[in-house]
Amino acid sequence: MDFNGLLDRLGLEGFYVSKPENVRYLSGFVEGKDGKVVLTRSGPVFITDGRYLVEAKEQRFPHRILLKRNELPALLSEYLTGRVGFEAEALSVAELETLRKGLPKVEFVATHEVFDRIRRVKTPQEIEAIRRSAALADEGFQHILPFIQPGVREIEVALELEFFLRRRGSEGAAFSITVASGERGAMPHGGASEKKIQAGELVTLDFGAVTQGYRSDMTRTVGVGRVREELRRMYAAVQQAEETALEAVGPGQSGKELDRMARELLIAQGYGEFFTHSLGHGVGLFIHEGPSLSQTSEDVLEAGNVVTIEPGVYIPGLGGVRIEDLVWVTESGHQVLSKSPKELLEL
Amino acid sequence: MDFNGLLDRLGLEGFYVSKPENVRYLSGFVEGKDGKVVLTRSGPVFITDGRYLVEAKEQRFPHRILLKRNELPALLSEYLTGRVGFEAEALSVAELETLRKGLPKVEFVATHEVFDRIRRVKTPQEIEAIRRSAALADEGFQHILPFIQPGVREIEVALELEFFLRRRGSEGAAFSITVASGERGAMPHGGASEKKIQAGELVTLDFGAVTQGYRSDMTRTVGVGRVREELRRMYAAVQQAEETALEAVGPGQSGKELDRMARELLIAQGYGEFFTHSLGHGVGLFIHEGPSLSQTSEDVLEAGNVVTIEPGVYIPGLGGVRIEDLVWVTESGHQVLSKSPKELLEL
Ligand SMILES: [Mn+2]
Ligand SMILES: [Mn+2]
Repeated sequence: MDFNGLLDRLGLEGFYVSKPENVRYLSGFVEGKDGKVVLTRSGPVFITDGRYLVEAKEQRFPHRILLKRNELPALLSEYLTGRVGFEAEALSVAELETLRKGLPKVEFVATHEVFDRIRRVKTPQEIEAIRRSAALADEGFQHILPFIQPGVREIEVALELEFFLRRRGSEGAAFSITVASGERGAMPHGGASEKKIQAGELVTLDFGAVTQGYRSDMTRTVGVGRVREELRRMYAAVQQAEETALEAVGPGQSGKELDRMARELLIAQGYGEFFTHSLGHGVGLFIHEGPSLSQTSEDVLEAGNVVTIEPGVYIPGLGGVRIEDLVWVTESGHQVLSKSPKELLEL
Repeated sequence: MDFNGLLDRLGLEGFYVSKPENVRYLSGFVEGKDGKVVLTRSGPVFITDGRYLVEAKEQRFPHRILLKRNELPALLSEYLTGRVGFEAEALSVAELETLRKGLPKVEFVATHEVFDRIRRVKTPQEIEAIRRSAALADEGFQHILPFIQPGVREIEVALELEFFLRRRGSEGAAFSITVASGERGAMPHGGASEKKIQAGELVTLDFGAVTQGYRSDMTRTVGVGRVREELRRMYAAVQQAEETALEAVGPGQSGKELDRMARELLIAQGYGEFFTHSLGHGVGLFIHEGPSLSQTSEDVLEAGNVVTIEPGVYIPGLGGVRIEDLVWVTESGHQVLSKSPKELLEL
């Protein structure tokens, strides 16, 4: 990355990077939360603490070790001068106070999502890592289907799925897995509980894998044996909304328009008030990043983005359906990275 | 909790709580990062978004649902007036900017660790949850010993240990498990790699369990068969430092003094420069919380604190030893919650 060009463009002499994903993105340091990157006119510097003496030497940039936390301002004062950017969404009010007190001559300037925006456009290597995570999730879905049986607790399904993904090489669960059955399906982020799955219920599984820090994100809703008409109708509406929005993904398309397309179909079917979240989000080192696909989004998709399309319908007391795919925005349109089937499976 | 008394003491009309652990602590909402608590003179209010319609009704406080993120200031303006506290360590500069812009008549006042300090002193119910997490970790240690064999990859040991804890009821790993063998033991936060464990190496395992959100934290270092004298000497020095500091834990004892006691013993044995982190930290809903036991700590232990004692020696190119116990500070002294043996096991 052309750091001097970036500083020029922002009118800055330096940049203090503290958001964990951005620290990892720039330096390669896996434990991003325990590191910082300082960009200066004479090049980048990586800072971590005494727990990482060995790892520090393996990073992309020259490094400095902080032995006591309160020595950070003194160390930074060796590098920073003039107008210095910081990440307003990541730096706490207290951290900024400490920096301003410790470096009174530096002018700290709030910036918004500078590196987050750069990270939205993935390189081919990043796409490959995400593709691998999506493929692991597809394998996980096939693996878990036989476990979804009446009498099995949701938490057992979630653990079996996570353990499968990790034994297959996923660095973790991309986020805490949701297995929400029956009425619990009305909770979009319902986690996985001690509740036993029952015949005739819908079960929503939301999960992903991690490869070199890059995540995938997929949701499928399946029936435990035959499900009744009311639920099939919900499923069909969500599937139509999902496939319609997915088909429309491409460079130049707006996040607001995609959300609107899916939402209008659900409204037309009488489910408008039950689609209580936004259509999707970018995915990368962070599970929820830009661009955003929502009613208030001002983002426009570009080639290299990776986003989810995930409409859902949640009816308290009845249950829920969500279908979510991960899609790569290409120069010519898109490529869907999650390959699992979407017809209603009645197991 | 007497919220009005707290507001009086702080000279505030309201408080905006956004730190996930504090939101959970106050409201009971498990997904603390997706909720806020507002304290007002007429009582507390819980705020979350449309993904949690069902859960919101189950929380301790009256709730409000935010359907669009940008409507937060408008919603808050119904409740907040005058001097309003916020958590300076948790609120980002950008969030504060948004609040100040959206609520121009409110005077937002930085506070430091108000609820974090309250959380340091655990109730009997909190102690029981931590005790259960510590007991699970002890079971995990016994379970994992037979898996630590020459030729086994560190990551396999870490996964087996985590899966055991979770199958036994832990809500997750308390943090990403470390299994660091041989030279990798010189990385205090080395994680678990593809490296195969070899005969004659030391292996450091750092792990914990979670019960109702409350964590445990324990480290043991074991030998894979006989280990050579140089390593045994390191082990003995760390064990002595750990046991000496542990024995001295009690109400009124300072975090700095405990760190000094352990550190001086390691210095006397020639390992001073290789103990590159602090002696310990509080544990609760968060894995690293107050009080702090370090060279710069100004904290004094009180009955109800739960802290770790975890000296270590890390010699690049050679390896490392850490021994960590979890200890509850009681009125009369302390009670060690981690019960696993500390003599050097040579498996
Ligand atoms: Mn998603
Ligand atoms: Mn610890």
